[in-house]
Amino acid sequence: MTIKILITGGTFDKDYDEVHGALFFKDTHIHEMLRLGRCRLDVKVRSIMMVDSLEMTEEDRELILRNCRKAPEERIIVTHGTDTMAETARVLGEAEVAKTILLTGAMIPYAFGSSDGLFNLGSALSFVQVLHHGVYVAMNGMVFPWDNVRKIRQLGIFEKVR
Amino acid sequence: MTIKILITGGTFDKDYDEVHGALFFKDTHIHEMLRLGRCRLDVKVRSIMMVDSLEMTEEDRELILRNCRKAPEERIIVTHGTDTMAETARVLGEAEVAKTILLTGAMIPYAFGSSDGLFNLGSALSFVQVLHHGVYVAMNGMVFPWDNVRKIRQLGIFEKVR
Amino acid sequence: MTIKILITGGTFDKDYDEVHGALFFKDTHIHEMLRLGRCRLDVKVRSIMMVDSLEMTEEDRELILRNCRKAPEERIIVTHGTDTMAETARVLGEAEVAKTILLTGAMIPYAFGSSDGLFNLGSALSFVQVLHHGVYVAMNGMVFPWDNVRKIRQLGIFEKVR
Amino acid sequence: MTIKILITGGTFDKDYDEVHGALFFKDTHIHEMLRLGRCRLDVKVRSIMMVDSLEMTEEDRELILRNCRKAPEERIIVTHGTDTMAETARVLGEAEVAKTILLTGAMIPYAFGSSDGLFNLGSALSFVQVLHHGVYVAMNGMVFPWDNVRKIRQLGIFEKVR
Repeated sequence: MTIKILITGGTFDKDYDEVHGALFFKDTHIHEMLRLGRCRLDVKVRSIMMVDSLEMTEEDRELILRNCRKAPEERIIVTHGTDTMAETARVLGEAEVAKTILLTGAMIPYAFGSSDGLFNLGSALSFVQVLHHGVYVAMNGMVFPWDNVRKIRQLGIFEKVR
Repeated sequence: MTIKILITGGTFDKDYDEVHGALFFKDTHIHEMLRLGRCRLDVKVRSIMMVDSLEMTEEDRELILRNCRKAPEERIIVTHGTDTMAETARVLGEAEVAKTILLTGAMIPYAFGSSDGLFNLGSALSFVQVLHHGVYVAMNGMVFPWDNVRKIRQLGIFEKVR
Repeated sequence: MTIKILITGGTFDKDYDEVHGALFFKDTHIHEMLRLGRCRLDVKVRSIMMVDSLEMTEEDRELILRNCRKAPEERIIVTHGTDTMAETARVLGEAEVAKTILLTGAMIPYAFGSSDGLFNLGSALSFVQVLHHGVYVAMNGMVFPWDNVRKIRQLGIFEKVR
Repeated sequence: MTIKILITGGTFDKDYDEVHGALFFKDTHIHEMLRLGRCRLDVKVRSIMMVDSLEMTEEDRELILRNCRKAPEERIIVTHGTDTMAETARVLGEAEVAKTILLTGAMIPYAFGSSDGLFNLGSALSFVQVLHHGVYVAMNGMVFPWDNVRKIRQLGIFEKVR
């Protein structure tokens, strides 16, 4: 079983730009994280964009959907900014792809050391192996179906809508 | 759904003793790890011992089994040193407790920063929510049934026996 | 001998704001850094502002100067953003205060873990104990007199002007 | 001005051995630490041994002394385990080499992330540039002459003898 990881950016992969003193995207940290976690799964990584999820457009979401569809793998993780993760989940969910697709991300950049990203990656990689076809959000150690999840921005957590 | 976490020690919880320049057990890091991972699951933690798994006795394993049996929770994670994790899994597996029990641990102490512990904890907490009753080892992003797992000590990884 | 540390902000003390996904100032990390470094010097810390050095005004610099003058201590460290550190050094230097004053800072926020801040703090606290009266910049393990230092912004380093 | 750094081991350079679950010496971390600290000094590093300072013999100390003598550099830092740092300082001090020699080390291995090593390295590199000929211990942000320093082992700190 091969798992595809699609990289789209988000807090997960933010780095610190010393010259401008701001956060920016350089490369994905996913390979280093898989190595630190000593992951032994058969994983294929593909970076399809590097954007803040607040700046993600409908075209971006269509591109993510197309990548999910055309991937030969049946099990897919999408790393994604948390602010609009639920919206992208809805686009993927309504498309009814016959695959198991999990969106995950982080509240703190991995480069900050104290990231929740490593925890979430371990969680998403585990859920994706055992859940039935469908689109889910994996955050906070929990898994949410795409049509029953929202982020509470002020608290930085995800919860069920109903 | 409440998840019980039973702490038994292992590399997971090793700390650095400055006075003697050696590794030792102080307290479990599990609460800090759950906080870093922003875990929002209903989790109950119980420390039942703090030992190196190479020094774990049959009495210790019986104590872990008794704790699994008497816990009101149906879903249980046991943090454990990796060297004899497969042996403890066998003791628990042969006892046929009607619960979902996952053993997990770390190759590097959490206190070292670069630990695989955070990744494994995210993984174990996810598997334990969805797997059927049985005893499993969750390491390297993978899950192994208790009767088909061994550690390759020189490589520091787990694999199927057959 | 008591050493005064005046906090003015800069990269040194930037934190990550999870709600807005940006860098901001919360509190100074200086106490935690002194504790990590196991510093046993008699140190008094005073936060006088929390600003990006690019946004520092002449009034801000006058305030720093007044704080250097009125401090009962003869040895003073000023933590400062690196972008205009040399300019503030000039203001303090031209004022000819009969004290030993060192400016230091960091290229990477302490909160990022891989900061140069801890190294620079150890350096500044050492230089300040032994240098004669004057105003200096302590960065890159080196010490520069206030009238012979500039930052090469694209490289993120300090060097002598002549 | 070139500064020689002589590596002798100690907590500074302890690593975690995953196979045996113990601390051991692999390579020195000094190059990575100089890079993190963005040190721009002209530094030459030489590893002469990798030992626990509790296991350091008189021959080892003679070897350190010979290396101090034969080094072309006039300014030397010796990284050293803290437990017998004061003893080695005495051997070097009584030899009356006409150089500035500083011993420094760490209470926590650099590999643990929360090390005092980075702070101490910044401190030692600064003191060594400005102090007169003599042998000193640089720990806790302070500098001690070789004939007036001892470690209080239970507290993990250094203090003057009189």
